[in-house]
Amino acid sequence: MSTASQTLVLPHALPLDGGGELARVEIAYETYGTLDADRSNAILLCHALTGDQHVASPHPVTGKPGWWQRMVGPGKPIDTDRFHVICANVIGSCMGSTGPASDAGDGNPHAMRFPVITIRDMVRAHVGLLDTLGIARLHAVVGGSMGGMQALSLAANWPERAERVLVIASTSRHSAQNIGFHELGRQAIMADPRWQGGDYYGGEAPENGLAVARMAAHITYLSEEALTAKFGRNLQDRPDGSKGAKTFGFDADFQVESYLRYQGSGFSRRFDANSYLYITRAMDYFDLAEEHGGRLADAFAGTTARFCLVSFDSDWLYPTAESRHVVHALNAAGAAVSFVELSAPHGHDSFLLDVPALDRVVEGFLG
Amino acid sequence: MSTASQTLVLPHALPLDGGGELARVEIAYETYGTLDADRSNAILLCHALTGDQHVASPHPVTGKPGWWQRMVGPGKPIDTDRFHVICANVIGSCMGSTGPASDAGDGNPHAMRFPVITIRDMVRAHVGLLDTLGIARLHAVVGGSMGGMQALSLAANWPERAERVLVIASTSRHSAQNIGFHELGRQAIMADPRWQGGDYYGGEAPENGLAVARMAAHITYLSEEALTAKFGRNLQDRPDGSKGAKTFGFDADFQVESYLRYQGSGFSRRFDANSYLYITRAMDYFDLAEEHGGRLADAFAGTTARFCLVSFDSDWLYPTAESRHVVHALNAAGAAVSFVELSAPHGHDSFLLDVPALDRVVEGFLG
Repeated sequence: MSTASQTLVLPHALPLDGGGELARVEIAYETYGTLDADRSNAILLCHALTGDQHVASPHPVTGKPGWWQRMVGPGKPIDTDRFHVICANVIGSCMGSTGPASDAGDGNPHAMRFPVITIRDMVRAHVGLLDTLGIARLHAVVGGSMGGMQALSLAANWPERAERVLVIASTSRHSAQNIGFHELGRQAIMADPRWQGGDYYGGEAPENGLAVARMAAHITYLSEEALTAKFGRNLQDRPDGSKGAKTFGFDADFQVESYLRYQGSGFSRRFDANSYLYITRAMDYFDLAEEHGGRLADAFAGTTARFCLVSFDSDWLYPTAESRHVVHALNAAGAAVSFVELSAPHGHDSFLLDVPALDRVVEGFLG
Repeated sequence: MSTASQTLVLPHALPLDGGGELARVEIAYETYGTLDADRSNAILLCHALTGDQHVASPHPVTGKPGWWQRMVGPGKPIDTDRFHVICANVIGSCMGSTGPASDAGDGNPHAMRFPVITIRDMVRAHVGLLDTLGIARLHAVVGGSMGGMQALSLAANWPERAERVLVIASTSRHSAQNIGFHELGRQAIMADPRWQGGDYYGGEAPENGLAVARMAAHITYLSEEALTAKFGRNLQDRPDGSKGAKTFGFDADFQVESYLRYQGSGFSRRFDANSYLYITRAMDYFDLAEEHGGRLADAFAGTTARFCLVSFDSDWLYPTAESRHVVHALNAAGAAVSFVELSAPHGHDSFLLDVPALDRVVEGFLG
């Protein structure tokens, strides 16, 4: 399944939560399946921190399958024979939508002149896209992790735009620990001398700093149990093919070291370090209750959407208690909400992996 | 309470697990309380990764109280009116014992020529110290975190040297997740261009890389609950004294960011980055079962010591299951062992903090 990424420019400037506006906003997005004549079968998929619009088509840099290939397609839980699926790269990112690497209008990248954005700003851009595409009301908005934050933000701030809201492995606010992990990643990037205050475009990117940030994040995406099951204390076979042994040096003796280094360096080649700074900042700023006077239930006052929240028992990044917190607020707001904690061993990344129970929940909720 | 650090040179070369030996080993240590005429009241305290011999005396660099000031002293749980307390800086560290920053004998620091050492190598140096001091058998060996690894290693490899073994918030092996966090710290240090392959002595140290490593580690030392209770999403007051607000920039808006930056930079000023590499490597290599043919119970075969293991319910670095694993092995070896999981909110760092229940366990076990 392959659909080329499309790009459009929003017809108006985008006002931002931090004040000011983005004058020219380009949105890169993909669609799958056909939009009905009455435009009622659209599903907006919202991607996570390092995700993109390539949901079910090969990634243009890595050539790997789309990040939700297993979930989205003909006859799959998000059935593109029935639904028109839209996924847009968030603003601030680096896969075609306007972000720090984009031209600021003066022939140079924004770099750190790019404004600090919020999750709501990302969603405001999505809504601009939907307006441009003539989609007044979504069949559903769906997202995992940061995608779930966007789904919640859409439901809270544009309540008439979605009939169904599916939030997977997410939270309504970033905790101190969440912020801590992001902050160490940002410090790693900014400590890389190649970062150059963000003005590295055209030169060497701060790949080492970004790799360290990714290693830290990656540990939080997996459960301790998953890491133990996958790697334990297994030693890495040597480049010459000999069996693994402790080298009494600083090579990657353990498989988990080798894996994390690979994850870090691979990520550095496909992602822009400044985008990592801006998107993590948006996530850290996210606090849906605070946006609505301090009481989360008020964020959902008067909603008519149906909600479904899914958490994973092994997710320690956004644990079940965070989903439950949202469910309680939705209950207090009188919203229709279902909630399930799924048992899956992979940790936070379970939402991207082979969890058949998730497929059934997604398919069932989308109706 | 103040006791000057003392230094001695071991009378012989120190054989190492990785092969070879350290020709000249200097040990910096402190003692508190008086050694009995029959030399039977000595307690060896083993310090953690970033600890040192300054247990109950001010740190010479920071001026802060010793790391276990609350636990060690006259009338305290480790009562220096009754016991002769010894704490030695581990080899590989940077507070006076031989480590990467020490002269290699050619007028230059070892730097990365320093051999990769193990926890057992550290303990072998401790045993050399005890031999030199004429202490054949300890009343107890006591340690938290990496100190607990040393206590277990002493009990397993030199079983005649300690009557009592007290292991707090520790483990018999480093998990894949533990290794992962250490590896990202090492990568952060080695990515710092000031690291220079370890040859930075006399110039600028890789403080940024070490600070990032410390930030990552520090998050693992605290529970999510403790971070939330201490900081939550509270914003940092501005330098001009005005109330905290989101700046829509990359300053430390959140208190937790400011705290972690402070922890990172403070640590960089008092600790040697190469020592951080070597000591984390020793911890990652630690697997007491593997050292003894693969079965942990065999590590303790024939022990006559009494053991006490303490874990904390909020410690996710070395969770209770790790202590229980050791207890099961001790049971299988027929050892005398008591075990308690204490409830404390602080996470792994609970062993250093005000937990009165820990004081009672320590005092009771030491008899």
